[in-house]
Order: sequence, then structure tokens, then C-alpha cells
Amino acid sequence: MQKRIDLNLQKYIQRRRQMIDRALERWVPGEHEFPPQIHQAMRYSLFAGGKRIRPILTLAAAEAVGGRAVDALPLACSLELIHTYSLIHDDLPAMDNDDLRRGKPTSHKIFGEALAILTGDALLSEAFYLMSRPDLMKKVSSHRRLRAISQVARAAGSLGMVGGQAMDILSQGKGMEKHLLEYIHSHKTGALIAAAVSAGAIVGGASAREYRALNGYGEKLGLAFQIIDDLLDVHGEVRKLGKAVRKDQIQKKATYPAFFGVSDSRRQADCLVQEALAYLKPLNWRANPLREIAQFILTRSN
Amino acid sequence: MQKRIDLNLQKYIQRRRQMIDRALERWVPGEHEFPPQIHQAMRYSLFAGGKRIRPILTLAAAEAVGGRAVDALPLACSLELIHTYSLIHDDLPAMDNDDLRRGKPTSHKIFGEALAILTGDALLSEAFYLMSRPDLMKKVSSHRRLRAISQVARAAGSLGMVGGQAMDILSQGKGMEKHLLEYIHSHKTGALIAAAVSAGAIVGGASAREYRALNGYGEKLGLAFQIIDDLLDVHGEVRKLGKAVRKDQIQKKATYPAFFGVSDSRRQADCLVQEALAYLKPLNWRANPLREIAQFILTRSN
Repeated sequence: MQKRIDLNLQKYIQRRRQMIDRALERWVPGEHEFPPQIHQAMRYSLFAGGKRIRPILTLAAAEAVGGRAVDALPLACSLELIHTYSLIHDDLPAMDNDDLRRGKPTSHKIFGEALAILTGDALLSEAFYLMSRPDLMKKVSSHRRLRAISQVARAAGSLGMVGGQAMDILSQGKGMEKHLLEYIHSHKTGALIAAAVSAGAIVGGASAREYRALNGYGEKLGLAFQIIDDLLDVHGEVRKLGKAVRKDQIQKKATYPAFFGVSDSRRQADCLVQEALAYLKPLNWRANPLREIAQFILTRSN
Repeated sequence: MQKRIDLNLQKYIQRRRQMIDRALERWVPGEHEFPPQIHQAMRYSLFAGGKRIRPILTLAAAEAVGGRAVDALPLACSLELIHTYSLIHDDLPAMDNDDLRRGKPTSHKIFGEALAILTGDALLSEAFYLMSRPDLMKKVSSHRRLRAISQVARAAGSLGMVGGQAMDILSQGKGMEKHLLEYIHSHKTGALIAAAVSAGAIVGGASAREYRALNGYGEKLGLAFQIIDDLLDVHGEVRKLGKAVRKDQIQKKATYPAFFGVSDSRRQADCLVQEALAYLKPLNWRANPLREIAQFILTRSN
């Protein structure tokens, strides 16, 4: 039984990835558009083999409340654009100084620092353009689109992802406290994952009750996701992850394994996924992909 | 007569600046908000004495078509946030490497490069949050708000401001061509100024005819603004401008004075302002502030 579900989930994820990749291909300016250098750099990072977890969550959340995936597609793509921008900036020499990402040289290694900074900036603006384009998402009310934009914008900013990243960098090498560790994880990664789910729910037409359920699911899942990321940094292989491992330890980063130990961190991730699943109880079979994605995130190896 | 108009314009600009500063003070997260470092850095650059030209244009454009300035205020502030983010990133060592901006040390000089990058990122996200916040701009239809967001997002991205900045950096020290010079100027600075006007017009309730008039005005004015900026770099004083002068020449930047000479550049700026004013012909007295701002931009000394 487990096997069949896994197989279906794999198919589901594969189909969604294709849908997202095709949409990104169509909607992001082509490499021939002027200035070609910046569009090449945008596409280099965008099509570097990302897992598309955030946009898949957006589509699954929209469908969980009875919406159509296709209507949430621009929003879903915008979350991948924001995720990609954040990776490019995080990898910069002034930040984490990473040479490798998804198995390929990082943006600044190929295009230089100045263009990497600008490419991140461009992807972030492009995300909001995609969410607001007048020729897309015509089946979704302007009111719901605005609400989704505000969710994503807040999650991306200083009270969300950027705030988490700032504290991650500012706290390197310093003594950690539990509440700070939680803050960093729930904001650096958790905020955008939660927004991917809740904005998808809004655009899918969620009722207030459905929205609360999905919002709770997204928050728990987002934190679990980052804890698993920390664990993979300890145990993972460069080959599978496509990025340097054990860098957290070298950079003296605030991580769950460093603070709680490996087995307790895994236990916490387990718990969070169970809590995420509990939030989905009020939802019917349409939320099954979200249920399976939560399990999948817990057992992922890259 | 000229004197009276100048005096009125000064008063108009002063009142609008106060309105914008108070709104930014209220809407941008306070320095006590966690993480304080990033909010301090955001506010450091935001309240460093900017002239607020873009948000003033937004308010004036909304009023030119019969809208109320107060209804366009969040949009106006968001344009100042985007402008400020672009300055912080442009000043980075990997970009223009400037130590001084508006007479004060640049963001990375005070907060370090990593935080300066993140502060720019945060300001850009905050801009889109401000435009989409559910508790603001309630008198403006969601449809018009979405249209304004898409205008601003496109103007800020790779086909607008970031594209211009990318070409500005990539073309440093290389031979210039006229069309490239025009591209850089109309995109690096012009795109956001044009969007400030046209998004203001949309939110103010512009008809299609009014929108076309204001859009034309904004495009011409945006290019004129950057030419004047180039001229100020040649002739200006550090004291007045609050930033290093003659850097364009040192960095072998593509500028109008370098390509066309000083007097021809000034003539072109004059022409562009006349063209901008001609676009406003179909509009009544409500567009007077826009008319006077165009003259003011031509004669500014900082």
C-alpha cells in the first residue's frame, strides 16, 4: 500500500514539476530579451534543477480547497522566483560565500558579483509582476490576488525570510539560544513555505476555516523542512545535495542538530509533520497530495 | 509671477514630503521590531534625506486625474522604498562602490555588506507589501491596485530599472553607442519615474486618455531626470549633492555629457521637459503641480 501511494506521489510531483517548468519557460523573459546577460543569469539559476517544492505546495493548496492548479500557476511560479533569488543572494561572497548550488557553480561564480546581485533583484521584482500581470489569473478575483500578494510580500521581507536570513548571518559563531534558533528556522525557510501554502489556499478560494487549516499546516511544515535541511547538511552527500555539506558546522551556524543533537532534531521534525497533518483533518481527499508531500519532506534525501 | 509659482511649488513639495515622511514613519516596521538590525538599516537609508521625487510624482499624478493624494499614499511610499533599495544595492562594493550617499556613509559602510544586501531585499519586498496590504488603500478598487502593482513590478525588474543598471555596469569603460546610452538612462532611472507617474494615474482613477497623457509625461521626464543627474555629476558640488562627484568620468560610465557634451545634453533635457509638458495639454489645472515639477527638475541643483 505504502508503495502505491509513493508511486502516485512521485507521478503527481513529476506532473506538477513539468507544469511549473513549462510555465516558467513561458513567462520569464527569454535569453534573447535585452539585456541578454541578466536574462541568461535569471534562467541559469531558475533552471538549475530545483525541486519546485514551494510552487508544488501552492498548486496542491489551491486544489485542496477545490481550486484549479492552472489558475494558481503564476502565483506558484512567483514563489519559485523568490526562492531562487534568495539562494543567489545567500550564496554571495558577502553572505554564505558558496561556490556550488544544485551541483552547479553559483551565480556569482559564473556571472560575477554585480550581476548576481542584480539577478536576484530582478527575480524578486519578476515574481511580483507574475502575480499581478493583467493577462494572467483572470479566473481569480482581484481581491484574492491582492491578498495573496500581500501574504507573499510579507513572508519574503524583513518580518519573514529576509529577517531570518539576517539573524542567521548575525548570529554566526555566537552562542545560540533556543528561541533565536526557532526564529531563524521558522523565518529563513518556514515563512516562504507557509506563504506558498496559504497564498495558494487564498487563490484556490479557501473559506476562512480552510484557510486556517492550511495556514497551520504550512507553518509547521516550513519549520520541519528547515530542520531536515540541517540534518541533511550533517549527513548528506555533496553528490546528492548538489551543494557543499557540513558548511553549517564550519561557519558555526545556528542549526537544530548542533543545538538539540541529531536524534532529537529528527524527533522534532517528525512531531512537526504530525502537527502539520493534524491541521489538515477538516479537509477532504482533495488535501491528499498535501498529506503525502508532508511525509515526503520528512524522508527526502536531497 | 514666476516667483509666486516657485514659492507655491516649494510649499506644495514641502507639504507632500511631510505627508510621505509621516506615512513611511507609520508604515515601515519600527527599529524595535525584530530583527532590529535590519529595521535600523532600512530606516537609516529611508530617512537619509531623500528628495521624495518619485512619491511626490505619484501623488501629483493621482491628483491630476481627480484622485485624492491620501488614497495613493501607500503606493507613493512603495516607490520611495524601491528607489532606496536600488541606491543601497548600487552603492555596494561589487557595484558602484560608493562610500557616501546623501551626505552620509552608505549602508554597507555602516552595517556591512551582508546586511546592506539584505536591507535592499527587504525594502523591495516591503514595497510590494505596502501596495497590497489589506488594511490600506481601501478606497481604491482591487483591480486598479493590481494594475498599479504590475506597472511598478515591471518597471523595477529586468526589463526596467535592473536591466538599465545591469547595462550601466556591463558597459563601463567600453565604447558607447547612442542607443545603448539612451537605453541605460531611460531604464536605470526613467522606468521607475515613469512608473511612479503612471501607477499614480491608475490609482487616481485615470481614464484611458488621461493615462496615455501621463504615461508620455512620465517617460520623457524620467529620461530628462537622468540627463540632469549626469550634468550635476560633472558640475555639482559634493556638499550640495551629498555624494561623490565626477565619479562617472572616473568609472568611465556611459553619460550624456561624455557622449553629447554638456551644452547639447542640457538642450536635450530641455527638449524632453517640453515634450513632457506637451503630453499634459489635455489635462486641466489639476495637472499644474506636475507641470511645475517638470520645470523644477530641469533647474534642480541637487
